[in-house]
Amino acid sequence: MAPRYTKLVESLPSTVPFVGPETQERAKGSGFAARLGANENVFGPSPKAIAAMQDSVPDVWMYGDPESHDLKQALAAFHGIPPENIVVGAGIDGLLGYLCRMLVGEGTPVVTSLGAYPTFNFHVAGYGGALHTMPYVDDAEDPLALLDKANEVDAALIYFANPDNPMGTWHGAETVQDMIDNVVADTVLCLDEAYVEFAPSGTAPALDVENPNVIRMRTFSKGYGMAGARVGYAIGHVGLIDAFNKVRNHFEMNRASQAGALAALGDQQYLAQTLADVTDAKARIGKIVAQYGFTPIPSATNFVTIDCGHDGDYARSLAAALIARNIFVRMPFVAPQDRCIRVSAGRPQDIDLFEVALPLALEALK
Amino acid sequence: MAPRYTKLVESLPSTVPFVGPETQERAKGSGFAARLGANENVFGPSPKAIAAMQDSVPDVWMYGDPESHDLKQALAAFHGIPPENIVVGAGIDGLLGYLCRMLVGEGTPVVTSLGAYPTFNFHVAGYGGALHTMPYVDDAEDPLALLDKANEVDAALIYFANPDNPMGTWHGAETVQDMIDNVVADTVLCLDEAYVEFAPSGTAPALDVENPNVIRMRTFSKGYGMAGARVGYAIGHVGLIDAFNKVRNHFEMNRASQAGALAALGDQQYLAQTLADVTDAKARIGKIVAQYGFTPIPSATNFVTIDCGHDGDYARSLAAALIARNIFVRMPFVAPQDRCIRVSAGRPQDIDLFEVALPLALEALK
Repeated sequence: MAPRYTKLVESLPSTVPFVGPETQERAKGSGFAARLGANENVFGPSPKAIAAMQDSVPDVWMYGDPESHDLKQALAAFHGIPPENIVVGAGIDGLLGYLCRMLVGEGTPVVTSLGAYPTFNFHVAGYGGALHTMPYVDDAEDPLALLDKANEVDAALIYFANPDNPMGTWHGAETVQDMIDNVVADTVLCLDEAYVEFAPSGTAPALDVENPNVIRMRTFSKGYGMAGARVGYAIGHVGLIDAFNKVRNHFEMNRASQAGALAALGDQQYLAQTLADVTDAKARIGKIVAQYGFTPIPSATNFVTIDCGHDGDYARSLAAALIARNIFVRMPFVAPQDRCIRVSAGRPQDIDLFEVALPLALEALK
Repeated sequence: MAPRYTKLVESLPSTVPFVGPETQERAKGSGFAARLGANENVFGPSPKAIAAMQDSVPDVWMYGDPESHDLKQALAAFHGIPPENIVVGAGIDGLLGYLCRMLVGEGTPVVTSLGAYPTFNFHVAGYGGALHTMPYVDDAEDPLALLDKANEVDAALIYFANPDNPMGTWHGAETVQDMIDNVVADTVLCLDEAYVEFAPSGTAPALDVENPNVIRMRTFSKGYGMAGARVGYAIGHVGLIDAFNKVRNHFEMNRASQAGALAALGDQQYLAQTLADVTDAKARIGKIVAQYGFTPIPSATNFVTIDCGHDGDYARSLAAALIARNIFVRMPFVAPQDRCIRVSAGRPQDIDLFEVALPLALEALK
C-alpha cells in the first residue's frame, strides 16, 4: 500500500526550482561551451581556497565540525559581530529551507516579489505557506509594496533580495534600512544578500544583530566562486540563530568546504580581483548586446540582465537559440521581466563565445 | 517582537544529536590523538576518490548536478536497479530528515529501538512525531517487537538499522526479509544500512524496488571513508523517490563529493582492503580489552562495542578517562547498553594509542 505521506507532501507538485545545465546537456547530447546561465562565478575560487580544499580532501574521512567553529569565528571577526549571531549551512538554499520550516506552516502568509527567487517559493510551498507576490517596479523589487502587502496579509516572513536576482537591480542602504525599520510586529524580513560583494559599497545597511526580525543571508557561492562547495551563512539575532539550531542538520557541512571558505574569506585581495574582472565582463557584455539594439540593465551582481526589447516569447526563443549554440543562459520567468535574458559575467574566452553565438542566434530567429 | 515561529518549532528543545569531537577538543584545550568515537572510517577514501575530489576542486565554481546523474547511473549499475529508484543526498542524516518530513506530522506514530540512532529521533521530534521505542534484546534490535509496536500504534514509519549502531550487532537477511514481508498496510520501513559493507555477505536482503513500503539507506561515509564529503543515497519504490524529490534541496550536493563518490564506488579493490584492515583492527581491539576482563560484542560494523561488565556510570567514567587521555570514544546512551563503550576500528597507530591509554584510564578510575 502507498505510504502515508503527510497531507501537505501528498499535495505538493513534482517540480524543481531550476533545471540544471547538466540536465540540458544530456537532453541535447552536447556540452555547453560557455556556462553563463546560473550566475556561477566563472572566475572560480581563490587559489588559496583551492589549495585549502585540496589539502583537506584526505581528511574527509572525518565529519565536518557541526559547529563550523573556525569559519564562524572568522566570519564574526570579518563582520565585527559575535559568532553566536551566525549560522553556517550548506548554501543559502538550505538555509532558506530551514527559515521556512521555522516560520511557515499551512496557510502562513509569506510575501515576496513576483518573479523573484524560485527556490524560496519552492520552500514556502513545501511547508504549506500562502505566498503573496508584488510586482517589480522599473525592474526592481519594490520595498514599500512588499511591506504594505506584508501588513495587509499579516505575513510571518518577507523575502527581499538586494541586489536582486534575476534582474541585477538594487536599492541603496538607506532604502533597505527604511524597510528594516518599518517591518512590523513579529514579521521576519529575510534579506538575501547573495550578490552583495558585487554591489557598490553602501548597498548593505549596517548589520544589527539586536534586531529580532531581520535575517541576512550571505554565501560563498557568488563573490567567492564556490557554488559547488555549498557554504552559506545567515546573520541574525541570537533568537533566530537558536531556532536554526533546533531544526538544522548539524552534520551537513563538507569538511573540505569549511576549510575552503575559511581560506577564501582570508583572501580579500583575490575577491577584489574577481570583482574587477566581473566589472570588465559586464561592461563587455553590455557593449556586445548594445550592437543589436538590446539594453543591458544596470547590475550590482555578477550577471547582466539584457532587455531584448520584445516580449517573453522573443526572449525565450533567443535563450533557446543560444542554448542550442552551447551557450548556457537563463531568463526571468515572469512578464514583463521575461522580455530579458540573463548572462553571467564570464572570463574573456566565455564572452568571446557569447559574442560569436549571439548574432548567429539572432539570425536563426528571423 | 519575537518572530512568529510555528508552534512546533517553538516547542522544540535546543538539543543536538551529537556533540562533535571538535567541540570537545575546544572544551578541553587539546586535540584528540586518536579519533575513534564517531565511527568514522580512519582508513579514509580510496586514493582514486581522493584524486577525483582534488581534481574536481577547481570546478567547484559550478553547482553540483542537482540530479547527481552520473553517480546515480553508477549506483544503479552497481546495485542492478533502475536509477529512478535512487535519490542521492548529503548523507543519510539529511535523507532521514526528508523521510521524516514526508511521513511525519504532529502526533504521527513512529517506531524505533530504544537507544538507536539519535539523529533519526531528532528529525522525528523536529516534525512533531510521537516516537515509540522498543528495547534491545541481547544487545540487538528486535524486529518482531518493532513490528508489533508498529501495529499497535499504527506507525507511519519504522526505523531499523542493520547492522545496528551503537551496538554493532546484526540480523541475517532472512530475518530482515521476514520483517519486510510483515510490514503492514501503509507503514514505511526505513532500513538504515550505513554499515552494510562491513557486514558478512548475506546480511542485506535482496533489493526490491517494487515494494512501496521499504526505503534502504546507504552511504559513502562508512565503508568508503568519506563522512566529511557528505554523500548518501536511498533506494526505494519510485513513489517514495518522487516524494523525496518534492521536498529535497535540489542543489545540496557538493560537486567534488559527487566526483569522489563515483570514483570510490569504482574502486571496490580499495574497499576490500579497507574491510580487511577493519577486521584486523576490530580483532586487535577485542584482544586488548579482553586483557582487562571486558567483552567485545561481535560486530558487523567498523567499530567494537565493548561490554565493560559494570553499570552505565562505570562506562561513562571510563569513556571520560579515555577522552581525558585524548582518545575520542563514545558510548550507548541508554541502559543496559550504556554499560559499554564504543571504539571505531582505527589504523595500527590509532589502536596503539588506545592500547596505551586504556590501562591508564582504568588506573585513574580506581
